Amino acid sequence: MIKNTKFCSNASLGTMDQTNNQIASEVLRLNYNENALGMPLSAQQAITDHLQSAFRYPDEYRVRLIAKLAALHGLTVDQISMGNGSSENIQSVIQMLNTRALDQGVAFQVIIPIPTFHFAELYADLLDIDVVKIPLIEEDFSIDIEAMQQAAESFDGISLMYLVNPNNPTSTLINTADLKQWIGNAPETHYFLLDEAYADYVRDPSFVSGIEFIKQKLSKNVIVTRTFSKLYAMAGLRVGYAISDASTIKDIESFTSQDNTNIAGAVAAVAALEDTEFRDFALKSNNESRLIVEQALDELGLRYLDSQACFILHEISTEVPLYEQRMAEHNIFVGREFLPIRGYNRVSLGTPEQMQRFVEVLKQFRSKNWI
Amino acid sequence: MIKNTKFCSNASLGTMDQTNNQIASEVLRLNYNENALGMPLSAQQAITDHLQSAFRYPDEYRVRLIAKLAALHGLTVDQISMGNGSSENIQSVIQMLNTRALDQGVAFQVIIPIPTFHFAELYADLLDIDVVKIPLIEEDFSIDIEAMQQAAESFDGISLMYLVNPNNPTSTLINTADLKQWIGNAPETHYFLLDEAYADYVRDPSFVSGIEFIKQKLSKNVIVTRTFSKLYAMAGLRVGYAISDASTIKDIESFTSQDNTNIAGAVAAVAALEDTEFRDFALKSNNESRLIVEQALDELGLRYLDSQACFILHEISTEVPLYEQRMAEHNIFVGREFLPIRGYNRVSLGTPEQMQRFVEVLKQFRSKNWI
Repeated sequence: MIKNTKFCSNASLGTMDQTNNQIASEVLRLNYNENALGMPLSAQQAITDHLQSAFRYPDEYRVRLIAKLAALHGLTVDQISMGNGSSENIQSVIQMLNTRALDQGVAFQVIIPIPTFHFAELYADLLDIDVVKIPLIEEDFSIDIEAMQQAAESFDGISLMYLVNPNNPTSTLINTADLKQWIGNAPETHYFLLDEAYADYVRDPSFVSGIEFIKQKLSKNVIVTRTFSKLYAMAGLRVGYAISDASTIKDIESFTSQDNTNIAGAVAAVAALEDTEFRDFALKSNNESRLIVEQALDELGLRYLDSQACFILHEISTEVPLYEQRMAEHNIFVGREFLPIRGYNRVSLGTPEQMQRFVEVLKQFRSKNWI
Repeated sequence: MIKNTKFCSNASLGTMDQTNNQIASEVLRLNYNENALGMPLSAQQAITDHLQSAFRYPDEYRVRLIAKLAALHGLTVDQISMGNGSSENIQSVIQMLNTRALDQGVAFQVIIPIPTFHFAELYADLLDIDVVKIPLIEEDFSIDIEAMQQAAESFDGISLMYLVNPNNPTSTLINTADLKQWIGNAPETHYFLLDEAYADYVRDPSFVSGIEFIKQKLSKNVIVTRTFSKLYAMAGLRVGYAISDASTIKDIESFTSQDNTNIAGAVAAVAALEDTEFRDFALKSNNESRLIVEQALDELGLRYLDSQACFILHEISTEVPLYEQRMAEHNIFVGREFLPIRGYNRVSLGTPEQMQRFVEVLKQFRSKNWI
């Protein structure tokens, strides 16, 4: 097991016995796909170093972060729109297209697979925008591209496809070739919001980020969102961004709040981007955690999807809400059932130590016929 | 002169000579009305204490801050909408009313005095909303309530009055009785966004916050915004909020991003609210700085407005852009000319030491006939 002696501010240190004792009494929050390693110490230090500047507006640090992101992705700075978490970017895209539709006197709909991350639906609902929900294909929980495409083509107006890739809660990928073909052949009224919150975790070499589609000028209607909330372990600091064609970014920015990156988030993000050692460690740790859970699920004969992210959607052979409740009684908060998929639960991958405890409890549950 | 030995993380410490030497070489940024004392040490400590929690989403800390604000103002939590700085609240209010007007098939306009803080105009422009600009009354730079009222009454649709109180850049107050009467008698299509970014600094005992109007249920169309960017010295952390009737807040929230208060901002804001000693000191310091500047302006025979905030709009008897440039050459960044007011400049009140240096340079300028 990888021991976390350098990076991990949050997980326990010390000898294995102490670790296990501490972990056993600790409440495990494996329900929001946060990176349980805690924020990189380099990022924490960057914040501490800038507390004396926090009385100033954050513009200078925001500009530096944008420049860094542009360099990282090989983009120009006008192709990036910062968000207060990528959730603000999702909101801005929806608001922008809604207003565009109102201006043009056409209808607007958001098409989402279900289950998926709920914020696009949430923001659309708040504005009374129609949300078309296309269930995942039952056999393999993959996104039903054909049905989504059809829902857009049979609609007279603007359609926004919201695609989380890898998807949450399934942690699986959309086939790159299929996605590229879909986007490349779509009419001008079809937009694609590719939420790549978990892209940093992808192991599958066939994955191509939507950022590449944008760089290849495949379509001006592709918007990719990224976040520092997951691999970079900064969910509390609210830093995300959108990438698109510069003209699309300009339109999105009309719906995005000014100065929306706080100084703590901006300096921490820059430090985290430079801290490749942390990221390598976080990926290794996540992988180890994944293997611990997969091995236990194999032993228990419970099915699970191929995880390309920091969580695993896996079978629970009893009622999921009851399972959730029992896990909570054991101080472990797991994800919920994501309808319409029944009989499956999502567990976030914490540290390897945390996942050891999780699988021990899982095995206890089996001995009681609770799963 | 008040010496800042306890609170002031940013301004210089040490003996007077050291202080003056340091200040003399320092770039003075007196252009954005930030609180040059720097963030309270209590707030800095709160951030440091929570860095290990920053990998989690900030909801818990956001909820605590909202509860604290509700208690402080004697409001219920559903009367408060957090913003990423109050600028996001301004944006949400404009978007909400714009969409309401579109839904009702009526027109929408924003009415602002000029000069004033430019974000309402900025956000309206981004959405192609008409902005009606009513110049301040020339004699005393007060807001022309009658002309604004008339602009609203002669308009068939929804009007939003954006009123910064005390106003920026004039730092003067709207007469409370007049404002109350205006709001109390306004029809349902007239809305009032009272931006009270500087309300914490007001010395005039006749001032009544719009929060009182809301508590007295004067109108559901009053929205007050407040910020931690000024007195609380947290501009970099982006924490602001809107207060209104609960039903109005619910409508505004549809246009506000989720989780928009970062954990650093939330814990710092709670600490700053509890740090009454810092705030007392900051007000005393601001007052001392104000007197230093006023005394110098009196000596130089330059007019200035009665400051109820952390800046002073004052006369410059030469071309203001040239004055600005010369100040910059002396490492002092002052505010700009705010048209249509000509021949006046806005200077933010830094620490008393900083303002001593500012007035010294001002006097040098006079000796060169530069002002």
